Parts: sequence; C-alpha cells; structure tokens
Amino acid sequence: MFKLLFFFAILILSSNAAVQDFCVADLKGPESPAGYSCKAVTKVTVNDFVYSGLSAAGNTSNIIKAAVSPAFAAQFPGLNGLGLSAARLDLAPSGVVPFHTHPGASEVLLVVQGSITAAFVSSANTVYLKTLKKGELMVFPQGLLHFQVNAAGVTSVAYVFFSSSNPGLQITDFALFANDLSTKLVEATTFLDEAQIKKLKGVLGGTG
Amino acid sequence: MFKLLFFFAILILSSNAAVQDFCVADLKGPESPAGYSCKAVTKVTVNDFVYSGLSAAGNTSNIIKAAVSPAFAAQFPGLNGLGLSAARLDLAPSGVVPFHTHPGASEVLLVVQGSITAAFVSSANTVYLKTLKKGELMVFPQGLLHFQVNAAGVTSVAYVFFSSSNPGLQITDFALFANDLSTKLVEATTFLDEAQIKKLKGVLGGTG
Amino acid sequence: MFKLLFFFAILILSSNAAVQDFCVADLKGPESPAGYSCKAVTKVTVNDFVYSGLSAAGNTSNIIKAAVSPAFAAQFPGLNGLGLSAARLDLAPSGVVPFHTHPGASEVLLVVQGSITAAFVSSANTVYLKTLKKGELMVFPQGLLHFQVNAAGVTSVAYVFFSSSNPGLQITDFALFANDLSTKLVEATTFLDEAQIKKLKGVLGGTG
Amino acid sequence: MFKLLFFFAILILSSNAAVQDFCVADLKGPESPAGYSCKAVTKVTVNDFVYSGLSAAGNTSNIIKAAVSPAFAAQFPGLNGLGLSAARLDLAPSGVVPFHTHPGASEVLLVVQGSITAAFVSSANTVYLKTLKKGELMVFPQGLLHFQVNAAGVTSVAYVFFSSSNPGLQITDFALFANDLSTKLVEATTFLDEAQIKKLKGVLGGTG
Amino acid sequence: MFKLLFFFAILILSSNAAVQDFCVADLKGPESPAGYSCKAVTKVTVNDFVYSGLSAAGNTSNIIKAAVSPAFAAQFPGLNGLGLSAARLDLAPSGVVPFHTHPGASEVLLVVQGSITAAFVSSANTVYLKTLKKGELMVFPQGLLHFQVNAAGVTSVAYVFFSSSNPGLQITDFALFANDLSTKLVEATTFLDEAQIKKLKGVLGGTG
Amino acid sequence: MFKLLFFFAILILSSNAAVQDFCVADLKGPESPAGYSCKAVTKVTVNDFVYSGLSAAGNTSNIIKAAVSPAFAAQFPGLNGLGLSAARLDLAPSGVVPFHTHPGASEVLLVVQGSITAAFVSSANTVYLKTLKKGELMVFPQGLLHFQVNAAGVTSVAYVFFSSSNPGLQITDFALFANDLSTKLVEATTFLDEAQIKKLKGVLGGTG
Repeated sequence: MFKLLFFFAILILSSNAAVQDFCVADLKGPESPAGYSCKAVTKVTVNDFVYSGLSAAGNTSNIIKAAVSPAFAAQFPGLNGLGLSAARLDLAPSGVVPFHTHPGASEVLLVVQGSITAAFVSSANTVYLKTLKKGELMVFPQGLLHFQVNAAGVTSVAYVFFSSSNPGLQITDFALFANDLSTKLVEATTFLDEAQIKKLKGVLGGTG
Repeated sequence: MFKLLFFFAILILSSNAAVQDFCVADLKGPESPAGYSCKAVTKVTVNDFVYSGLSAAGNTSNIIKAAVSPAFAAQFPGLNGLGLSAARLDLAPSGVVPFHTHPGASEVLLVVQGSITAAFVSSANTVYLKTLKKGELMVFPQGLLHFQVNAAGVTSVAYVFFSSSNPGLQITDFALFANDLSTKLVEATTFLDEAQIKKLKGVLGGTG
Repeated sequence: MFKLLFFFAILILSSNAAVQDFCVADLKGPESPAGYSCKAVTKVTVNDFVYSGLSAAGNTSNIIKAAVSPAFAAQFPGLNGLGLSAARLDLAPSGVVPFHTHPGASEVLLVVQGSITAAFVSSANTVYLKTLKKGELMVFPQGLLHFQVNAAGVTSVAYVFFSSSNPGLQITDFALFANDLSTKLVEATTFLDEAQIKKLKGVLGGTG
Repeated sequence: MFKLLFFFAILILSSNAAVQDFCVADLKGPESPAGYSCKAVTKVTVNDFVYSGLSAAGNTSNIIKAAVSPAFAAQFPGLNGLGLSAARLDLAPSGVVPFHTHPGASEVLLVVQGSITAAFVSSANTVYLKTLKKGELMVFPQGLLHFQVNAAGVTSVAYVFFSSSNPGLQITDFALFANDLSTKLVEATTFLDEAQIKKLKGVLGGTG
Repeated sequence: MFKLLFFFAILILSSNAAVQDFCVADLKGPESPAGYSCKAVTKVTVNDFVYSGLSAAGNTSNIIKAAVSPAFAAQFPGLNGLGLSAARLDLAPSGVVPFHTHPGASEVLLVVQGSITAAFVSSANTVYLKTLKKGELMVFPQGLLHFQVNAAGVTSVAYVFFSSSNPGLQITDFALFANDLSTKLVEATTFLDEAQIKKLKGVLGGTG
Repeated sequence: MFKLLFFFAILILSSNAAVQDFCVADLKGPESPAGYSCKAVTKVTVNDFVYSGLSAAGNTSNIIKAAVSPAFAAQFPGLNGLGLSAARLDLAPSGVVPFHTHPGASEVLLVVQGSITAAFVSSANTVYLKTLKKGELMVFPQGLLHFQVNAAGVTSVAYVFFSSSNPGLQITDFALFANDLSTKLVEATTFLDEAQIKKLKGVLGGTG
C-alpha cells in the first residue's frame, strides 16, 4: 500500500502539471488576443461547462420577427479557448436573420424545428442557397455574408455552432445604418440613394 | 456603361484571387496534414455545403442501444478545412455512448430530445457530470475522456459539434479490446484481470 | 580538405531536410486548406519572390474612380503559405473603394500619395474613421466592414497588406446586387426598398 | 563614433520592440488559453531556460515499477508558449507506464537506456507496436491511447518530448477508477464487470 | 417602434458578446504568449488603429547610413494579436540594413523611393537576390537571413510588413559582437579570426 | 450477436471518418504549406512511426569535430504534420555546432553523454549561456541564434527536439560564405573584412 500511495503521489504531481485542460473564462480578469483569463481550477464546477440559456425561445416580437441568442465565451465561460461557440435562432413566421458575417469563425447551422431558407455569398459573388428541413445541416465559410429566413408557416428554430469561442457578429444593416457614419459617406461607399440611407438610419437609430 | 464593365472586370479579377473562401473536400485527391484537397470551385454546388445524413435517427438496435452518426469532412465535404464538424447521437432507453475521446477537437453537445447524463474527466481525474435537459449545452474540452447515457425513459437525441473538420473518435473499449493486442499486454497496461479482458475481447471481436 | 568536404556533405544532407523554408505556389497542383501545392525547389528562382505587378497605377476610369490590384498568392506565388499578401489602391479624385471585408485576414494600409479617409465598423457598430496622410498606417481588424475614399483633390495611392496569403475580398454591393439572388430575398434580408435593389442590380449586372 | 552610437541607439529601440522572443512563465500571473503570463524580461536569466529536474532517476518503488517525471511549463517555465515540453520515464524491470493519452500534444520517445515496448492505438483500433532499443525514436500522434513497458531485464530509461508546453496527461485507469464516478456509471460506460471496477477503485483510491 | 427598440436591444446584446473584434495592446497589463493584454473597448479610439510614426524619415547619419523604424505592437498597439506589423527603412546613398532575421515572421518589402538590392539565403544556402525598383515587392520567408542595400545614388525608402504583430529582429552582427560573449566562444562558433572579432566587438560596443 | 455486429459496423464507419489521426509523409506526393501529402492509411505500418537513424554516432572526423543527424519529416515520415522532430548531436573533444538558427521551430536539447556548453542570443543581444551536464535540458526559443560546444574532454552526445516536423536549419557561416554571394555584398552587410570573407569562402566552398 505504501508503494501504491507513492505511485499515486507521483501521478498527482504529473497531473498537476496538466491542469490547463481547459481555461474557463474569468470575465473580470485581463483579456489576451487568445481570449479571457482562466478561472482558478479549484473554483471551476461542472456548471461552467453547461449552458441553459438557449433552452427557451428568444422573443421574436420585433421588426425581424426573429431572435438571435448567443452562447459565446462571454455567456458560456467554459467555451473560452476551446474553439467553439453556439447560438439559437428563433424565426417566427416571416422571420428573418438579415445579412451578416462572423468575422472570426465558420458556422454550421442545424434546423431543429420548421424549415429555413439560408444562403451565403462567396467572394466570387456566387450565391449558395438552400431551403433546409428539420435535421439538416448547412455550413457557412468564415467571414462570408449569409442570411436565414423562415421557410415555414410556423415558427422555425435552429442552433448554430462556430469555430471560435468568440466568433463575432456583424449585421450589415446595423454596421451601415445604426451609427453616426455620415449619410454622405454611406452614400459614397454603398451606392445607395440618400433617401434610402436616411430611411434606414431612421429605422435603426442611426444619425448623421 | 463601358467604365462600369471595366470596373466589373477588375473586381472579377480580384475576386478570382480569393476563390479559396472554402476548400470543399475532393475525397479522391491527395490529403495533407491540413485536410483533404480542394474540389475545383467550378464544380462546387450548394449541396456540398448541406448535409441531410443526420436528419433520420440512427439504428439503436445494438448492444449499446445507441447510434453515433458522424458528419465529418469525409461525410460532409463542405466542412473540410473550416474547423467544424458534427455528429448525431441517438440513445434508446438505457442507451449509452461509452467512454471515448476525440483526439483532435473539443466538443459541444446539444440535447434536442429527452434527457442525457454526460460527463468528462479532467487530467486531475476530476469528474464533471451533469444531467442535461432539452435545449441545454455542454462542452467537453479537447482530448479528455467523456461519455453520454440516456437519462430519460424514452429515446433521447443530441447533436454534437467539434472544433475540427476531422475530430477523430477513439472509443476506449474498442481501443483496448477490439484488436489483436495481447491479453498479457492489456493486462499489464490496464491492471484489468485476465478474465475480464478475455470476456470483452470476446464481445468486441478482439483476438490475442 | 577531406574532412572539410565530409563536413560539407553532412550539412548539405541536413540542409536538404529543411528545403521547405518556403512553398512557392504551383498554381496547377492540388490545393489544400493550407494553400496551393509547392513548386519543386529546383525550379524556384528569385523571381518567384518578387512581384512587379503593383508598380504601375491601376485604371481608375470606372464608376468608382478607383482600382484595386491584388498581389495574393494567385498573382504572387512566393507568398503562398507565408501568412502575408498585398494589394495596391489607386483612387482618382472622388475615388472610392466601397464597403468590403476580407473574410480571412486583417489589413494594414499605408498611404504613399495624397490623402485617404478610411474607416471600419466594429461588431458593436462603432465607426473608427480617420483621414490619413502620406506615410500614415491604419489597421483594419479581420473580417470587419471597411472602406477607403480619396480625401485629396488629386489621385491618392495606398498599399495594403494582409495577414494571409489568401485574404479574400467581399465587396458588399457586389455580394448583394451582382448575382441572381432574388430581389425579394435581398429586400427581406437587407430592409432596402425594392426600387433601390433593382436599380443597383441594374448597375452591377445582377438579375432576379 | 557619435554616428555609431546613434546607430546603436536606434537598433536598441527596435530590439526593444522585439523583447517577446520568449515568454518565460510567471506562475503567479493570470493564465490565458495561450499559456501562463510572461515574466518581466529584466528578471529572466539563463536558468529559466535550463531544467535539471530530469537528471536523476524517478522513484520506481511503486505498483507500476515506473516513474513519470514531467518537465512541462509548470516545472520548466522557459518552455511556456514555445510549443515544446518533456518528461522522463524510468521503468524498473517489469515496469509499466499504463495506457494514457496527452489531450493536447503529439509525443516523440527516445530510449536512452535498456529497451522498451511501446504502442499506440489509432481511431480505427489498429495497434502500432514496437520494441525499441537504445537510441531509437517512436512518435505517438496527438490524443491517441498509448503505453510503454520495460522490455529489458534491467531498468530502462526514456525521455519523451511533446508538441505543446502543456500537453496534459490522462491515465485511463486513473480517469476511470481514481475518483467518485459511481460504479454503476463506470459499468455502463465501459462494459467492465462491477467486481472489476470495485477492485480497481480500491487499488487506486476511488470511491462510489 | 416598440418592437424595433426591442430588436435593437437584442442585437446590442449579441454584439456585446463579440466585442473582442480586436485586442488593442494595454502595454502595462500582463503579457501572454499570444501578445499583450487588451485595453478596455470603452477606452479604444480610432487613434489606436492609426500610426503616424513612420511618416518621417529615420535618421541615417550613422555607420550603416540607414534607419529602421519599427511599428510593432509595442509602438502601434492596434496591431496586437492581428498577425501584422510594419517598419520603415531609410537608406542614404551606400546605406545598408545588415544581415538579420525576424524569428517570428515572414516579411514583404515595398520600395517607395529609389532602388534597393535585397536578398535572402535559404537553408540550402542558396542566395535569392534582386534589385528592386519603386513599386516592386519582395517576400522574405520566415526566419531566414536577409539584407537590404541601397542601389540608387540617392536615398531609397521602403516599407516592410510582417506576418506577426511581434516579428522580432535579430541583427547578426549585433548578436555576435554587441554583447559579452567571449571572443574565444565567438571564434569557436563562427570560424572568424580573433582579430576580426575583437575589431567588431570594438565597433559595436561588445566586451569579452 | 447480430446486434453486436451491427454496433461494430456503425462504429467502424465512424472510425473511418477519423482515419486522419496522422499523416505519414508520402515523400513523392505534392507538398503543401502544411507539409507532405499523406501516405494511404492501408500502407502505413508501425515502422513509419519508428526511426533508428539516430542510434549510431554521427561521423565527427571533420572540421567542426561534430555531426548533426536530422530526424525531420523527410527522414522520419511518421512525424509529418505532428509538430515535432528531432536530431542527434555528436561532439568529439573540441567539437562545435556553430552558430545557427531554426527558422520554423523552437528547440529543446537533452544531454545524454558528456557535457555541453550552449547559448542563445535574444533580439536584445543578451547571451543566455550555460554548461549542461548529462540529463539536463535547455530550450532555445524559435528563430534565435544559438550554438553548442563540447565542454568535456571526451565525446559528448545530445538529442534535440523541435516544435515542427520541418524546423529548418540555417548555419550562419554557410549562409554567409558557402555560396556565390559576392564578397563585396558580404562585406557591406556584415562589416567583416574582405580578407576574412575570402578566407572563409575558401574554407566553406563559396565563390564570388
């Protein structure tokens, strides 16, 4: 038994060397380009690796009749540094997730209810569009513009997964119209008409 | 209009420079450490980015009362090189996905039906165990042993997502017992009794 | 001298082990997720590592009064796999490089002639905008929307550098309007008016 | 001479910009997914880059007649962030390093004394097994199960090297039996008999 | 309008999840192997992403008749973690940037004034040498020895860009002669004559 | 039994999806920036993962009284893509491995016989020098100049390990003197005297 405990001690030592199996986000610590700081392993519990925030439907009583609920490292600290994250999409009838990109990740979408028409556009401006049924997957390569619209008469639901714990999300309309970039510059850099720009700035809370 | 076409031509050129937005797997071409060769972009269609193989339930009429259906780059070529893949788990009542690892990826699990008890074990031999309900997520850090068992009286279903298009899958029982590694060496390297090893070799088709 | 030649022979051997200092693109070989195949080292010359295609001004006689000339791995094979590429921007008076992203790279811009107003928009929809003089640098983080407009009464010139040999280029207007994505879907996913969409589809050669 | 000093000053400046040639671990600072924080360069000495802890034999007076002594970043701070680490294996006659994995690294083994039989098992459950003599190398791909046993009548010694400064170490027996995971769950997820599990839990200090 | 604001709120939330679009260096925070800590996003301004320090010529009144002015993350904090950095080279007539390497990055050089002869040497000891004119680019693969010399009768200027925000810079002469490494060891490890070494130690401020 | 075989079949399928546990180099196939092409798994044997080429002493009857024997992916195909490689150093009395760099990897050295004085020089021109005894380790950060000299009166032996399967090796003397770079350019870019350069060109087989 003495020998055994000795063995045990040695291996505990070597295991201690490997405590960085994971790096649960300490949201209050310093951030690095690789992500959030790590919470002390002694304070980590299984609840850091479980997230219940996507169990319930998002509120789709809004202009796009859709909700996007993220489970990135900021919401789900156990993901930090592990190269994965998730989000839930709820699309009421006629609901739309407008054109957007994820600057730092590719995405896989899984339809779990209803039916969704999704598409991405390549650098060569080719559209890859498909209507997906429950249980089908679609992949959106990193950084490319894509959208999802409900293709069913009822609410559709999808979960999406990203190749980064911090994929980012840039919705084109919000980037163009929901800030103080001057109408003149938006006009020059999008070829949109002034009236169109002003209209969308009004809708989305932009100024300038 | 002439000027416009000129502009168009210039941008088509620059877009051509960027055709490698994605690298749909050409399963017959040479493989590199980074994955499969890329299919010619001219032959790529939206169907390369969509996978329907996980829509239907896997067959759980087997010893583990469970099925694991992969959607890795070999099954779903559009994933190649994008740092993501997926699989579907079907667990009949009492169904089990036995202890296993993914040598090349972290994993996120989403319960879409029923309830599943899942756990992983860290290098420090700590068990992180939780029973998950529909809509809940759990993350399993790269390379660590983990399992999933049905926690409901009915069939449970989950989808899992990986941080690599080629995560690998090593089921501990199969690695230990479903090959020709001699019983003597298995005994020496696992501390299991000879009878136990021979029994499992018998069940899983191993020899030696 | 015999000893010396022996030493020489040994080191030549070890040097041969390290020939993959670089991987000049063989544009006709198979591509992998990591880039183009490597040209045989015996066929590589210094000219593979030099590119003269950005010496001359691009043609700015077009609708945007601007030219974007890429030096990605497809044009400049010596860059393949080295994590870098370049492009030249020529902006005639009032010239504009419209809103665009690079899905696979961050960018640094250097003004070498005239003055340029540039901006990027973050995921939080904040605009980071600055008018740059000759010799000034600006960085655009990966995947985020950005633009450049001439801020001088004369032609301005900039060179941009990317953190990938294949950064990609997606010009928002072209992605939205220069293909066959239906006007109805563009309308639903951008909130733009139908007339605006049809107008820009007309200008940029789109259909549907 | 004035000019020279001027030159010197300029280059010192540019050298200061590059102080992060290395990132010696500050074990008390915050950790990130990329590793430990960096010790101030002014406090770094050559001793941070040298490790003597593997010079002496590990104690093999234990149940496995073997010792595994790690030199990971936690023991050898100079390795932090450099993508390398090491360990020493001492195997007395009949000594065994039981089945284990390194979740975050590939491994190369070098026999420096005696003879060692080593093997790894692939995802396809194929066993790659070889008896190695002094001076021979064997590589174990990332995350796969492997073991080492003494193949000599005397003590054998090997050094192993990893492709990460934090490779991790998960010994299958300890992960399964040296914690509080219930016997029932171990039984369900390994197909081992209850008696076998209870026996090994007893030996390795597990409960439940 | 109520619905709209609701939508706005939801998307702001998801945008907050993605604030780590960039990681502007906080030079006073802890460093990690991945770079400097991130400045709080609320304190980031456009000036963090703009650098004017390379607008003016460096002082070439020195022994090499050249100046190297870096814009690495330490000088240009917006670059931190983005995989890019820059430097300016000023070469008076007969000016030289002596043999050096960048341990952590590949480099692309752009001539903006005059003419420069540049070369790198491969592991196979092959010299890749070219005289570059204004507007031409040359790439130097990671870690290989290279130099630049003025090839014009007037001052030449180049900008160089690196595939890391912290490329490092090791000037061979300084590494060999500008420190306290003993003349005897320099002699043994370079085959240079003692007198030559002592001469250069004298010029470059070395001792020993 | 039928059910078991069914289970077996399912898991074989999923294992097939994961055959890319490794990528043994096919030295005749196309290379990519990520390394050599992969040999077909069906042709892989354990011998691909074992290398005996470093068992015997290298020939030190040469000018440096030393031998460097590489085990990179070109010699040891099983290493391809796994982020590791090795080499053996034999140093006769007074033997020297002259100043050199590895452009693509960090290195760890293990002394297995005798005693070795080793050093590296940082970007700040600081020398980190130590005399190592048998069993001691030293790490050399990526891309920095370093050397090893025998510190014993007898032959010393070390093994070195790299953080890449293709680390490269650039010996400074050979890069400077063993090719056709003109004496004039070497003089200008190293500050060495013409006579010194011509002498070393003579010794090392250079011209020009």
